[in-house]
Amino acid sequence: MPRILLAGFAGSMGQQVVKLVASLPDFEITAGLAHRLKSSDPADYGLPASAKLYTSLDEIPADAADIWVDFTVPASVYQNVRYALENGYRPIVGTTGLTDQQEAELKQLAKEKGIGGLIAPNFGMSAVLLMKFAQEAAKYFPDVEIIEMHHEDKKDAPSGTALATAKLIAEVREPHQTAADTTESLPGARGGDYQGIKLHAVRLPGYVAHEQVLFGGKGEALTIRQDSFDRSSFMSGVKVALEKAADLNQLYVGLENIL
Amino acid sequence: MPRILLAGFAGSMGQQVVKLVASLPDFEITAGLAHRLKSSDPADYGLPASAKLYTSLDEIPADAADIWVDFTVPASVYQNVRYALENGYRPIVGTTGLTDQQEAELKQLAKEKGIGGLIAPNFGMSAVLLMKFAQEAAKYFPDVEIIEMHHEDKKDAPSGTALATAKLIAEVREPHQTAADTTESLPGARGGDYQGIKLHAVRLPGYVAHEQVLFGGKGEALTIRQDSFDRSSFMSGVKVALEKAADLNQLYVGLENIL
Amino acid sequence: MPRILLAGFAGSMGQQVVKLVASLPDFEITAGLAHRLKSSDPADYGLPASAKLYTSLDEIPADAADIWVDFTVPASVYQNVRYALENGYRPIVGTTGLTDQQEAELKQLAKEKGIGGLIAPNFGMSAVLLMKFAQEAAKYFPDVEIIEMHHEDKKDAPSGTALATAKLIAEVREPHQTAADTTESLPGARGGDYQGIKLHAVRLPGYVAHEQVLFGGKGEALTIRQDSFDRSSFMSGVKVALEKAADLNQLYVGLENIL
Amino acid sequence: MPRILLAGFAGSMGQQVVKLVASLPDFEITAGLAHRLKSSDPADYGLPASAKLYTSLDEIPADAADIWVDFTVPASVYQNVRYALENGYRPIVGTTGLTDQQEAELKQLAKEKGIGGLIAPNFGMSAVLLMKFAQEAAKYFPDVEIIEMHHEDKKDAPSGTALATAKLIAEVREPHQTAADTTESLPGARGGDYQGIKLHAVRLPGYVAHEQVLFGGKGEALTIRQDSFDRSSFMSGVKVALEKAADLNQLYVGLENIL
Repeated sequence: MPRILLAGFAGSMGQQVVKLVASLPDFEITAGLAHRLKSSDPADYGLPASAKLYTSLDEIPADAADIWVDFTVPASVYQNVRYALENGYRPIVGTTGLTDQQEAELKQLAKEKGIGGLIAPNFGMSAVLLMKFAQEAAKYFPDVEIIEMHHEDKKDAPSGTALATAKLIAEVREPHQTAADTTESLPGARGGDYQGIKLHAVRLPGYVAHEQVLFGGKGEALTIRQDSFDRSSFMSGVKVALEKAADLNQLYVGLENIL
Repeated sequence: MPRILLAGFAGSMGQQVVKLVASLPDFEITAGLAHRLKSSDPADYGLPASAKLYTSLDEIPADAADIWVDFTVPASVYQNVRYALENGYRPIVGTTGLTDQQEAELKQLAKEKGIGGLIAPNFGMSAVLLMKFAQEAAKYFPDVEIIEMHHEDKKDAPSGTALATAKLIAEVREPHQTAADTTESLPGARGGDYQGIKLHAVRLPGYVAHEQVLFGGKGEALTIRQDSFDRSSFMSGVKVALEKAADLNQLYVGLENIL
Repeated sequence: MPRILLAGFAGSMGQQVVKLVASLPDFEITAGLAHRLKSSDPADYGLPASAKLYTSLDEIPADAADIWVDFTVPASVYQNVRYALENGYRPIVGTTGLTDQQEAELKQLAKEKGIGGLIAPNFGMSAVLLMKFAQEAAKYFPDVEIIEMHHEDKKDAPSGTALATAKLIAEVREPHQTAADTTESLPGARGGDYQGIKLHAVRLPGYVAHEQVLFGGKGEALTIRQDSFDRSSFMSGVKVALEKAADLNQLYVGLENIL
Repeated sequence: MPRILLAGFAGSMGQQVVKLVASLPDFEITAGLAHRLKSSDPADYGLPASAKLYTSLDEIPADAADIWVDFTVPASVYQNVRYALENGYRPIVGTTGLTDQQEAELKQLAKEKGIGGLIAPNFGMSAVLLMKFAQEAAKYFPDVEIIEMHHEDKKDAPSGTALATAKLIAEVREPHQTAADTTESLPGARGGDYQGIKLHAVRLPGYVAHEQVLFGGKGEALTIRQDSFDRSSFMSGVKVALEKAADLNQLYVGLENIL
C-alpha cells in the first residue's frame, strides 16, 4: 500500500486531501509536514493515529513515505519538491508559484534521479478535461471564443484557466482571427484577445468558477463547459494522480498530460 | 375582418408577412405598396387575387385598408407612417431608421388624429420577452451582465438588442458597478460597459442571433436566453401586434409595451 | 423601525434570517421563538443582546414585535401563524407543510383581522422570477418543456418547483401537447407529463438545485434558467417580503404575488 | 489531385458535397452517379464541365475516379460500396441503412482488396467530437445524463446520436446507476434508461438538432453540447474524411475513429 507524506495537511486543501485519502482503501497517510502545529495529535487533523507530524524538512526521517503530496505555499514549494526528489519521494504537487525556470530544474532533477511525478496548477478534472478537449476540437474548429464566469471578488480577468485554455488552442491552430473587422460601439465589447482568440470575463455574485469554450463552424456549434462549485472538486484529480503515481516515469507538468 | 395594406410586400420580411396573414383566418391583405413591381399579378407575391398593388402613396385610394403594416426601408418609413396616420390607417411598423425626433412627431400626430399603432424595432417575441423580463429582474438583481452571440459577418458590437436591453435595465436600477476594481491582463476581457452593465459580444460562424442576460445574487443566479434561428421568428410578434391593433389607443414604440 | 419576532431562530434557515436582518438598518429582531434552547444568551445565536427568547407561544407577551417571521417545522407552522394573526403580527412564513385547507383558513382569519402577510414555499428570488416569467411567456409560446437538475440525493422527481412551474403555465395556456405522436425507443425518454407539458429531472453529484424552462416557436427559442447554489439564496426573497410587509393588505400565498 | 466519383450528386446532401469540393483546391469531382437525371449537363448540378454523369453502375468505366463518395439511399448503398471496393475506389459513405452484417462483409472485402475508407452515419464534426469527448470524460466522471433537443416533427426519441453516445459511454465505465432510488411523481420524469445512463428528449418548434452530455462529480460539473443548425454542418466532416482518405488502411466505421 503506497504511503503518503502530506505537506500542508493543516490547510484547507490539505484537509480535503486528508478526507480523500481516508476514503481510498489503497493509500494511507504516514507523515505530515506543516510549519506550525496547533496540536501534536494527528486525530485533530483527521489523520491516522500512526501518522508522524513534522514541522521542517530537517525532522523528516529517511523513507517516511513513497509519495510526497504538496499543497503548501508558493514560498515553500520549490524547496519541498527538490527535497522530495533528492530523497526518493514521488511528488504530486498542487501548490502554485513555481517559475518556468524552477519547473525545468525540477524536471531535470527528476530525470537524474529516475523519479516520476506530477506538478499540476489545476487538479479539477472538469477544468482539465475542458482544456484537453478544447485543444483537440480547435484542430477541426479554428473559430473559437472563451467565456469565463467567476464570483465578484475575483480581481484578475481573464482567469488563469481561461488564459491557459487559449494558449493550448493557439498551439494547435493556424493564426486566425474571427470577425476581424467588427467595430465596437462600446470599447471592449468584443473581449480580450489572445492570438486571435477572444476571451470574455463575467463577474457576478452567486457564481463560483465556470468556463465555457464556444466553437462555431458552418451550420453547427460545439460548446464545452465546466463548473467548479467548491474546492472539493480538486480531489477528483488528486485521486487520479495518486492512482497513476507509480507508473509515471518522469516529472509531468499538467494533469492533462497523464490522462 | 380587419383589412391590411402591406407596404414592402415584395421584400423578404414583407413576404414573411404575406405567409403569416394567409394563415390568419381573421385578417386579409387588401392592398400592397412597393416602389417597383416585377409583376402586376398579386398571385406572384402570394397575395389574394383581389389585392390592389400600388407603387406610390399618390395612387392609394381612400380607405384601402384598416391597418398599415410597414416593412420597407429607412428612407421611406417616416413618410409612409405620416401618410398612414393622416389617412386613418393604424400603423404596425417593423422598418427601422426612424430618429427619436421622428418618432416623437409621429406619436404626436397619432395623438391628434386619435389613432393607435405600434413601431417596433424588434418583432421577435423571444427577444422582446427577454428585454421585458430582464428589466423586471433587474429590480431584484442589480448585478447583471449581457452576452450576445452572432454570426461572424455581423460588423457591429454589441448588437442593437443587447444595447437596448442594457438601457432598459439601467432605467430601473440604481447606478451600480459589479466588481469595479477588476484588472484586465488582456484589455477588453471584462467587456464593454453601459452604465455599469458589462456587455460581451461573441462572433462565430454557425451562430445566428442569440442573447443571454445573466443575473447573479447571493447563492443564486438567473439567466434569460433567446435564440433567433431565422427571420420567420419575427412573425410571432407581428401576429400579436395585429391581434392587438384594434385596441391600441396611442402610437406605442416597442412591442413589449403592448404585451 | 419594524420589529421582528423570529420563530425558528436556532435552525439553519433561521440563522440565515438572523444574518440578513443584521445587515438591514431598518429592521431589528426583538424576539425569538424556539422549542428548545441550548443557551439563554441571544448573542450565542447572533441576536441583539436586547432580544427576548421564548420557548412556547404562552410565554410571548403582547406586542413583542410587528412582524412574525416563521422558519420552523411543518408540525408547528399552522398553530404559529394562527397565533400571529390573532395577536396582531404580520406573518412572513417560509415554513412548508400547510395544507390547502389550512391556508384557506389562515387567509380568512387574516381578512377578519385586517392583517396582511405572506406564506411562501420558495423565497429564492431566481426561482420565483423564473416561475413568474415562465407563466407570462407561455401566453405567447405555448410549446414548452421543463428540465430541472438536482444533486443525486434528491429522492423525488420532478422537483416541487418544476411541478409548480408547470401548473402556473397550464393555468394560462390552452390545452396543448407538443410532438404528441413521438414514439419512445427507451420508455420515459420524453419525460413526465403534466397537462401536455413535459418535465425532465436530472440527478447528478455536483449539481445543487437548478431549473430551466425551454420555450420554442417558429425560428426562435426562449430559455429561462435559475441556479440555486446554497440556502443563502432564500434571503433575497425574505428581504423583499420584509420591505413590502407593511403594505400587504391580505395574506398572500407565493412571493410572486407581491412582486 | 485525387478524383472523386460522387454517388447521389443530385440529392440535397450530394449538392452540399458539390459545393464543398468546389471550395477545395486539392480535389475534383470527375464523375457522378444518379439513378435519374433531369439534365445531362453537369453545370446544372454545379459540377465541372468535364465531369461524366452515369445512371447505373454498369455504365461506369474503369478508373473513373480515386474516391467514391456516397450520399444515396439505403436501398443502394450496400451494392454501391461493394462495387466501389471491387473496382478500386476508396469509399467515403454517408448514406445510412447498412446492417451490422453488411458492414462486416464490406470491412472484410476492403481487407481482402487492401483498400481503406470510411462509413460514417454522422459527418457533423460537432456531434462526432461530442461523442468522442463524452466517452473519454466518462472514464473520470461515471455519473452522466444526456439531454437532446430536436424540432417537433422528429418522431423517435431518443435520437440516434444520443443513443450512440450512451452506448459509447457504457463501453468504458463500470455498470453504474446514479440516484437509483428516486421516485417519480410523474412517470418518465427521470427519462429513458440505457445501462444506468438517463436520456431525456425535448421536442419543440424552433429547435433543430442539439445534444448535451452532462457529467457531475463532487463539487463540479462538465457539460459538452453540440448544435446542428442545418445540413451544411455535415460538410466539415466530409472534408476531414477526404483529406484523410489516402491514409486510411482499412474500412473504418465512424468518423471519430479516424480523427
